[in-house]
Amino acid sequence: MEELFLIGIGTGNPDHLTLQAIKAMRQADLILIPKKGPDKSDLAGLRHAMLAEHAPRVAVAEFDMPKRDVSTGYLAGVEAWHDAIATEWVAAIARAGAGREFSQKIRRVALLVWGDPSLYDSTLRIAARLAPQPKVTVIPAVTSVQVLTAGHAIPVNEVGAPFTVTTGRQLRDHGWPEGIGTLVVMLDGECSFLTLPPAGVHIWWGAYVGMAEEVLAQGPLAEMAATIPPLRERLRAEHGWIMDIYVLRRKG
Amino acid sequence: MEELFLIGIGTGNPDHLTLQAIKAMRQADLILIPKKGPDKSDLAGLRHAMLAEHAPRVAVAEFDMPKRDVSTGYLAGVEAWHDAIATEWVAAIARAGAGREFSQKIRRVALLVWGDPSLYDSTLRIAARLAPQPKVTVIPAVTSVQVLTAGHAIPVNEVGAPFTVTTGRQLRDHGWPEGIGTLVVMLDGECSFLTLPPAGVHIWWGAYVGMAEEVLAQGPLAEMAATIPPLRERLRAEHGWIMDIYVLRRKG
Repeated sequence: MEELFLIGIGTGNPDHLTLQAIKAMRQADLILIPKKGPDKSDLAGLRHAMLAEHAPRVAVAEFDMPKRDVSTGYLAGVEAWHDAIATEWVAAIARAGAGREFSQKIRRVALLVWGDPSLYDSTLRIAARLAPQPKVTVIPAVTSVQVLTAGHAIPVNEVGAPFTVTTGRQLRDHGWPEGIGTLVVMLDGECSFLTLPPAGVHIWWGAYVGMAEEVLAQGPLAEMAATIPPLRERLRAEHGWIMDIYVLRRKG
Repeated sequence: MEELFLIGIGTGNPDHLTLQAIKAMRQADLILIPKKGPDKSDLAGLRHAMLAEHAPRVAVAEFDMPKRDVSTGYLAGVEAWHDAIATEWVAAIARAGAGREFSQKIRRVALLVWGDPSLYDSTLRIAARLAPQPKVTVIPAVTSVQVLTAGHAIPVNEVGAPFTVTTGRQLRDHGWPEGIGTLVVMLDGECSFLTLPPAGVHIWWGAYVGMAEEVLAQGPLAEMAATIPPLRERLRAEHGWIMDIYVLRRKG
């Protein structure tokens, strides 16, 4: 493999694909996709549908997504998991390349990355484990941050002001960051906004943003802190999984 | 006008367009674009080329982009400027609609927004001034943040860690925010990274990100603080304008 394309595909709307992403898919000799797992959150069907529509002649290889070991601590578990995923990529490429003629060797491999490869995503860190290191080309895509703010038709920032993008865990452990009026919170499985004093805070929340299942809600945190958690539980029960994101803004 | 589409078009690569953006362009009865100004930074040609390729049958109306009055203070000047732009939109729509039959009335108007309408962009605030208020639909696009990190093939965040997106002015006036390891700095006409103690800081910088003119540079801030400012001046002289963005990350 000489070049690895990490292609952002957006957040579940097939029309989030950019023209650049479609061109990159078509240039690949092989596209790696994770094998469909037992739950619906891997959205394997979306990747297959995109390939069938936009790059039907490109070879596809599936790889097993290893399980993350949570017994060794968070960061150590993540490191070992990334090693294991890189090993699965290499094995899948080797299987796909076995017996090919020289003229059909696999030089360009592509992965379809949920959201954008830059934002709370492991793919770049897994790619850095490959030896010899291929050239890595990233194709950017819309992130869930943009899709959330588009859904609510709001700017993410106030005029000339900064904002912080953070995780549910960070918000629980460290509270609201000093000097920042707007927070974007991702990867929050625990409604961590419940740990904040709600006075003067507005929340713009979304689940499954960009997908057919999208649900949006917004209002003063003092009110929404009572309505979002049960809504979130109902949606998770209905769909079997949930992914949500929100913006918090303090007045003044 | 019943509906206003604010369509993000990305950062100057025509292939940043999403399929969703192209569909929205084609659904519009009228697309408003700013008249080509005296300098090259308005990139009027890019908008015209996108429309010619993807929505050649949709009517286009140009509007004059008013000048911002900087004599009344920053925020007051911005407010008056947004009022004036909204007035120009309304006038351009009225001119385009004059004499049309009822069946050809302008119901859906679209604007092509540089980058993404959510990020350091005025279009949503200008749209909020329209009376009666149309339905506002935002089509998200890749931002210069994603295009920069894609160009450098880096994640914007460290594993599980927050990052802050801010402006050159904020960085100069308030320094590095407490408790944050990664900063994304936008709208910086003054190389504000020069105000920081450079030890232990890495910078990933880019100008004209996503465009044919793109230039990237990265390295320890201690070294790059000497090389980026003259490079930036040379590029600005060569092209007649410059737009740049950077990520700063502190070790540890």
